[in-house]
Amino acid sequence: MRVTSFEDANCPVALGLERVGEWWSILILRDAFHGMARFDEFQRNLGISTNSLTRRLNSLVEGGLLEKRPYQTRPVRYEYVLTARGRDFWPVIVALYSWGSKHFPPQSPTVYLVDAETGRPIEPVLVDAPTGNPVDGDHAAFAPGPGASQQLRASLERATLGVA
Amino acid sequence: MRVTSFEDANCPVALGLERVGEWWSILILRDAFHGMARFDEFQRNLGISTNSLTRRLNSLVEGGLLEKRPYQTRPVRYEYVLTARGRDFWPVIVALYSWGSKHFPPQSPTVYLVDAETGRPIEPVLVDAPTGNPVDGDHAAFAPGPGASQQLRASLERATLGVA
Repeated sequence: MRVTSFEDANCPVALGLERVGEWWSILILRDAFHGMARFDEFQRNLGISTNSLTRRLNSLVEGGLLEKRPYQTRPVRYEYVLTARGRDFWPVIVALYSWGSKHFPPQSPTVYLVDAETGRPIEPVLVDAPTGNPVDGDHAAFAPGPGASQQLRASLERATLGVA
Repeated sequence: MRVTSFEDANCPVALGLERVGEWWSILILRDAFHGMARFDEFQRNLGISTNSLTRRLNSLVEGGLLEKRPYQTRPVRYEYVLTARGRDFWPVIVALYSWGSKHFPPQSPTVYLVDAETGRPIEPVLVDAPTGNPVDGDHAAFAPGPGASQQLRASLERATLGVA
């Protein structure tokens, strides 16, 4: 993706997506949250070519989501570790996990997101931190910002948000 | 993206991503949550070609995220409306919005996500519905499922999750 419209240059979703890279980049981040860090781990798990993986890792490093650092010398080998910005991507991974699990449940899931103490599956929901209200159409709304076009302003008045 | 590895065929994140389509598809869903429904609305807002938009809308219809339905006859014109599955994608959009807003704040934001009652900006956080615990590394963990490879099992033991 490349942000083409003036309006998208001021949309946090578009700006965020642009910095992540591509679909594969999200799977790399997923693997990083699964504890992987080394080139050959990502490669074995994703089954993509050396060139493709290099390009995507470099893009995540440039975007500030991963830090490349040596873990051995002679020969030098690097690992790719989540930065604070990369770790902040965590809710996106959880939201995708949750949506995929509900709508396209795998026959034989690779992972479950569980309560660290009880092992019971987590049921992730978004709430507003100060109020604890769920972030849904009853409690939240998109309001136009200074960068909104007339078209966007008009459509926001018709918008109904998310899960009821 | 195309799921290539056997393991990813059992990963909810990979399966979910595959059904969404591409980056542009997420921007189309974002626009749908902004109240847009008609072909020309999406096209004007995204600035992409008729062919590209048609392909992506069809893919979202096939994936069951949008429903295509006529809103006028002579000539027939269609609108594209979020299905229940599409509305369930909402937390992914919010998570991307939140991450983009924090790490790549636009100069002149197009939208703000606000409390519907007070107009105050929402601070979205993920919690586990039954316990109310934040979904972070202190309270949540990825546990291997039946589809996990040996490599994944080993790496999960080293994993540290998300925002601290």
